[in-house]
Amino acid sequence: MNTKGQVITCKAAVAWEHGKPMSIEDVEVAPPKAHEVRIKICASGVCHTDWGMLYEAGRRVKHWPFPMILGHEGSGVVESVGPGVSKFSPGDKVIPLIVPQCGECDRCLSPKTNLCKTNWHNSLRGVLADGTSRITCKGRQVNQFMGISTFSEYTVVSDIGVTKIRDDATLDRVCLLGCGVSTGYGAALNTAKVEPGSTCVVFGLGAVGLATVMGCKAAGAARIIAVDINPDKFVKAKVFGATECVNPKDHSKPIQEVLVEMTNGGADFVLECVGNVAVMRTALDSCRDAWGVCVVVGWTDVGEMSLLPMALLMGRTLKGTYFGGWKSVESIPKLVDDYMKKKLMLDEFVTHTLALDHVNEAFQLLQNGKSIRTIIKM
Amino acid sequence: MNTKGQVITCKAAVAWEHGKPMSIEDVEVAPPKAHEVRIKICASGVCHTDWGMLYEAGRRVKHWPFPMILGHEGSGVVESVGPGVSKFSPGDKVIPLIVPQCGECDRCLSPKTNLCKTNWHNSLRGVLADGTSRITCKGRQVNQFMGISTFSEYTVVSDIGVTKIRDDATLDRVCLLGCGVSTGYGAALNTAKVEPGSTCVVFGLGAVGLATVMGCKAAGAARIIAVDINPDKFVKAKVFGATECVNPKDHSKPIQEVLVEMTNGGADFVLECVGNVAVMRTALDSCRDAWGVCVVVGWTDVGEMSLLPMALLMGRTLKGTYFGGWKSVESIPKLVDDYMKKKLMLDEFVTHTLALDHVNEAFQLLQNGKSIRTIIKM
Repeated sequence: MNTKGQVITCKAAVAWEHGKPMSIEDVEVAPPKAHEVRIKICASGVCHTDWGMLYEAGRRVKHWPFPMILGHEGSGVVESVGPGVSKFSPGDKVIPLIVPQCGECDRCLSPKTNLCKTNWHNSLRGVLADGTSRITCKGRQVNQFMGISTFSEYTVVSDIGVTKIRDDATLDRVCLLGCGVSTGYGAALNTAKVEPGSTCVVFGLGAVGLATVMGCKAAGAARIIAVDINPDKFVKAKVFGATECVNPKDHSKPIQEVLVEMTNGGADFVLECVGNVAVMRTALDSCRDAWGVCVVVGWTDVGEMSLLPMALLMGRTLKGTYFGGWKSVESIPKLVDDYMKKKLMLDEFVTHTLALDHVNEAFQLLQNGKSIRTIIKM
Repeated sequence: MNTKGQVITCKAAVAWEHGKPMSIEDVEVAPPKAHEVRIKICASGVCHTDWGMLYEAGRRVKHWPFPMILGHEGSGVVESVGPGVSKFSPGDKVIPLIVPQCGECDRCLSPKTNLCKTNWHNSLRGVLADGTSRITCKGRQVNQFMGISTFSEYTVVSDIGVTKIRDDATLDRVCLLGCGVSTGYGAALNTAKVEPGSTCVVFGLGAVGLATVMGCKAAGAARIIAVDINPDKFVKAKVFGATECVNPKDHSKPIQEVLVEMTNGGADFVLECVGNVAVMRTALDSCRDAWGVCVVVGWTDVGEMSLLPMALLMGRTLKGTYFGGWKSVESIPKLVDDYMKKKLMLDEFVTHTLALDHVNEAFQLLQNGKSIRTIIKM
């Protein structure tokens, strides 16, 4: 059935309000407008940030406008394209992107950053370039989280916020490259620029943290110390390359002191993958002076981090990363290649696979520390 | 008269206690021990940190143990050397250093840092490698600020904490390379790595800030916006290369908002040369996202800086510098050369020249914002 130009009615998980489970609803997905692409979503990872939008708004993350369809770590197949779209055709396998790459702005033209901010403020409001979303339910506009919404059978995204991947890509695995895995892996490689033979510490062993461990290993780190208060994560951390695992609860001393002792003065690279301002401070204080680099990878847009200026004056550098520093459109297809060539692990992140109508269960698993990544298969 | 091996009695400005003016006293300077050099001081700059030790301890800087002889930005001539000293001979012109370069430790062997910490903890206690100072007064040991003490006609320093300079160097100018000028100039060149055509903001227009402006200019910055609440500093800032000067008191909006507007999104490089934690936050918030670099240059070892993690997640980098990142022993002679070849300004920093017995007056001038640098000539 050719659906081009038609409104598609399909299932989606609608988050009606903060703090309440999502409801599976019939939603209407409008055809793509100019420079937009409509995608049939095949699979979506469930990221901590999705959960946070529903249950942590005001604490770790800002309030976003409800109703909203969450999900931003997906993969799918192009169903149709709007006017002016030249790079995509129906049937293309694609990954929607949490940061666009317009290819034309000063950021896209600079080798220093991946932070293309075209349409950024619209994305933060859950709408596309024209200020509206393409999804409605029961007569109301439903906002698209980050301008994406992968917890829906279909969605529409901007053509600068999606990338084409190889035809043989395994969609229910490479979806993880849409956010968490790319973020952590790139944080180590692109932002921290971890060096061969170095000592690294990674705080937080969710998918982002494990991908960071994998990035440190890929960069040739000699020691990778993985830190989490949930020791169930340690087996997986070793799979991804951790050489040692530390549980702060096993120590009476502050963990930064333990780490500074373990590393004879602090680690060369410390990556915070929790999104907690207190852990960020701990991470900085776990860095070696003179040349230690601390990278904030975990997301929070609420709260302030404090630090002693001496930590900086004595030679430490504090940075942050967004989407691992990858220029999205051009880099994600290469990471897909790396996965298909077995240079990059993805299968190992997947602990659960559920259908869309079990998406609230996926949130429970995440919240209880039982899952690394649940894949929602459409 | 050959004084080698003898105790030298000479004049020095002794700080007996916190908050009280220094007294000019007769002090005894012992001969250098192994790997030490005794220097006849010829000139000394008066740095804000000297003043701070006496009048700001517990607020901006930690308490150091009194009695103490301040002054750490000096130049002089080697009077004699202790056993095992091979690189210096009597008559050599030298500059004592606030950070050593032993040449052998992991930091000295790394291209990433200048932070040689040999003898560091002793220096912070005001003593040399054997745990004592070489200066006494009225039967009491007098501590040597940073292991140096240039407000004395003679002093003794470690042979890894002093560098030989060319014979024709103008000692009452190149002394400024012992701290403030090198710190600011290097902060721009070595730590921020200011780029040609970039936009820079410098907070604080004391000697360190003005040297930072000079460093930004040397690096080829297109715009250098100099910020101070004392507009008397602006004429000098333009001499060193500022293209615009801004007084926060002239604006009702927070100065970071003014600067972000002036720079269409924030500066590429922002350097804080005040040593105030609130200004550090303002400096970070004046940086462009995506690639802005903020460098803490001003010294404080009291208080905490706070920041929004989003400032980092959106691509800003926060760093600090100590002695401008210069590997001290090898770099300072080159900066002296640059001055002698008129590639680097020093004369322009000097607003006053006073004799040692007027050193408290020099502190007054500094505190009242009337001087940039006073040179104490012995």
